[in-house]
Amino acid sequence: MKALIMAGGIGTRFWPLSRKNMPKQFLCITGDKSMLQMTVERVCRTIDINDVYIVTAQSQTELVHQHLPNLPVQNIIIEPFGMNTAPCIGLSLAYLKDKMEGNESLLVLPSDHVIKDTQGFLNSLKLAEKPAADGNLVTFGIVPDYPATGYGYIEAGGQIAEGVYRVAKFKEKPDFETAKTFLQQGNYYWNSGMFFWKFNVIWQAFAEYLPQVMSILQEIIGMWQKDGEPADLKDVYAKMPKIPIDIGIMEKAEKRVVIPVNYGWSDVGSWKALAEISPADENGNFLPKRHFALDAKDNYVRSDKFVSLIGVENLCVIETDDALLITAKDRSEDVKKVVDALTATKQDDLL
Amino acid sequence: MKALIMAGGIGTRFWPLSRKNMPKQFLCITGDKSMLQMTVERVCRTIDINDVYIVTAQSQTELVHQHLPNLPVQNIIIEPFGMNTAPCIGLSLAYLKDKMEGNESLLVLPSDHVIKDTQGFLNSLKLAEKPAADGNLVTFGIVPDYPATGYGYIEAGGQIAEGVYRVAKFKEKPDFETAKTFLQQGNYYWNSGMFFWKFNVIWQAFAEYLPQVMSILQEIIGMWQKDGEPADLKDVYAKMPKIPIDIGIMEKAEKRVVIPVNYGWSDVGSWKALAEISPADENGNFLPKRHFALDAKDNYVRSDKFVSLIGVENLCVIETDDALLITAKDRSEDVKKVVDALTATKQDDLL
Repeated sequence: MKALIMAGGIGTRFWPLSRKNMPKQFLCITGDKSMLQMTVERVCRTIDINDVYIVTAQSQTELVHQHLPNLPVQNIIIEPFGMNTAPCIGLSLAYLKDKMEGNESLLVLPSDHVIKDTQGFLNSLKLAEKPAADGNLVTFGIVPDYPATGYGYIEAGGQIAEGVYRVAKFKEKPDFETAKTFLQQGNYYWNSGMFFWKFNVIWQAFAEYLPQVMSILQEIIGMWQKDGEPADLKDVYAKMPKIPIDIGIMEKAEKRVVIPVNYGWSDVGSWKALAEISPADENGNFLPKRHFALDAKDNYVRSDKFVSLIGVENLCVIETDDALLITAKDRSEDVKKVVDALTATKQDDLL
Repeated sequence: MKALIMAGGIGTRFWPLSRKNMPKQFLCITGDKSMLQMTVERVCRTIDINDVYIVTAQSQTELVHQHLPNLPVQNIIIEPFGMNTAPCIGLSLAYLKDKMEGNESLLVLPSDHVIKDTQGFLNSLKLAEKPAADGNLVTFGIVPDYPATGYGYIEAGGQIAEGVYRVAKFKEKPDFETAKTFLQQGNYYWNSGMFFWKFNVIWQAFAEYLPQVMSILQEIIGMWQKDGEPADLKDVYAKMPKIPIDIGIMEKAEKRVVIPVNYGWSDVGSWKALAEISPADENGNFLPKRHFALDAKDNYVRSDKFVSLIGVENLCVIETDDALLITAKDRSEDVKKVVDALTATKQDDLL
């Protein structure tokens, strides 16, 4: 079994901590290890580090080295630029083609999610082996605990084994009312973007459902096989359709199953989401060690300084060397708009 | 005419900007000059700098030099430690005794108030000359524009000249209902702590109403007159009663008048008060030059960094090299409690 971890995200949602040269997966925001390090550690409970591959951007390879010094250099797959998950996974499959057996399992994971219950995660991988061996594309669906409108959903159909269900349908991000009915019906799960499949099954799926991508992948393999200079993939990779694998393959495939999981997952998609999984004091505050709080509750503050809060609640406050963000917790997704504004006004020092 | 400016305050209300070694009067919080500099500039529109005296703490004399390089060194009067306004003014009178004529006027001012209308201020001084020459202790009463509970009030009695009234009574800080009736009645003014009097009149008042203080002042004059080492006033000054001049003299004196003034005065007693007199953008925000604000209004932010606000209102945010304060505007007077807590826990680096 091998693992492929996607670590090319640019992560604007954690500005001002995340920057162009320091995306979310390299931040130590949930502890003293980066999200990438924690993802790899989790995977390495069952997969050897030599069988872990990281697909990332050229500009981030040095960071990957720093965060994962034990990872073999050749296990870093470089995407010329971000083109969404189908091209990214396709490129990785092309890279792995001569390194994997056709019936070898491949686990595909994002690098910037939190999973609290590692044993639950490992159990879910065990559950995935049989359906994957039977030729299914396996997805992991998060048991929802509130009617989220920010995720796609997977509707589970008939059970085919203990804890394993046929996928009835992939659902786009719903409106709030629809999300509530999903929650009530009980057989809808958040699409986590984690996959498990046999190499030849997903390779065949690319050929069948994304022939255009497969043809580019074959071209790339040909370039790699040529002697001489390392191949420059930019021009050929640019021809890829910018398509997520969910839409490009998962929604079309016939043999696909979902394994519902409930192991304390979070995609940590905003400062608010991070606040929710961070330890808080008796007033719901997450504060630097040195602080003074008076009538302050449910605030999330990151700063190296002495922080004093008086009469404020539900704020996210992030201070870095050059920037200070203060946002209402419920508005923390709008941090993207700060980054947009900085980009539009070319304030590169803050990006 | 001479002026005495009281600049010994420790100013905890502007923490974290104000510190033990950097009290409010030395801060440039209302512009690019310190409050002390602005006070002296205002006074020097009518009084020569050589006739301006500053009474301050030993620890602040160097700061006074720096802020007022043109002030003669001998015009700095050093208070061994803060003992409230009656001892402070008494000590200054003792220092000035051989430098002033008995019938010379003395203007006494705090160093940390804002007055927008300088001409109005100068006019009020002119108005004060006649009643002072007639032997009155002259006070300046601020025309109230809201029922403040944080100031003492002066009740005006009969008019004795255009714009000059007998003082009927000094009133302690009222409760809100009482303050509202004061505002309705129209002859109540905020006690500003600014005075104007002939030297011999106030000197005589000390002798009459505060004989204990006068006896200490005579002792101090004796020490100063001795040859040799500069007098160490600590022990003798420590015997002073800690009494404000309002209670010690003004409430008891018979000949006292009030001149109502309405020249854009503020004692800038809190971050909120400072926010109210600071220029704001169209959303009521006072922000650093580099900022991004989205659905944010009526915030006051001081920081050297790029500041981003999303969905927040009525906050005061103050960032210094070592501290970050975020307070609801209406709670900004509680900044004193931060200083109290830091003092109690001996976190001297933050004081």
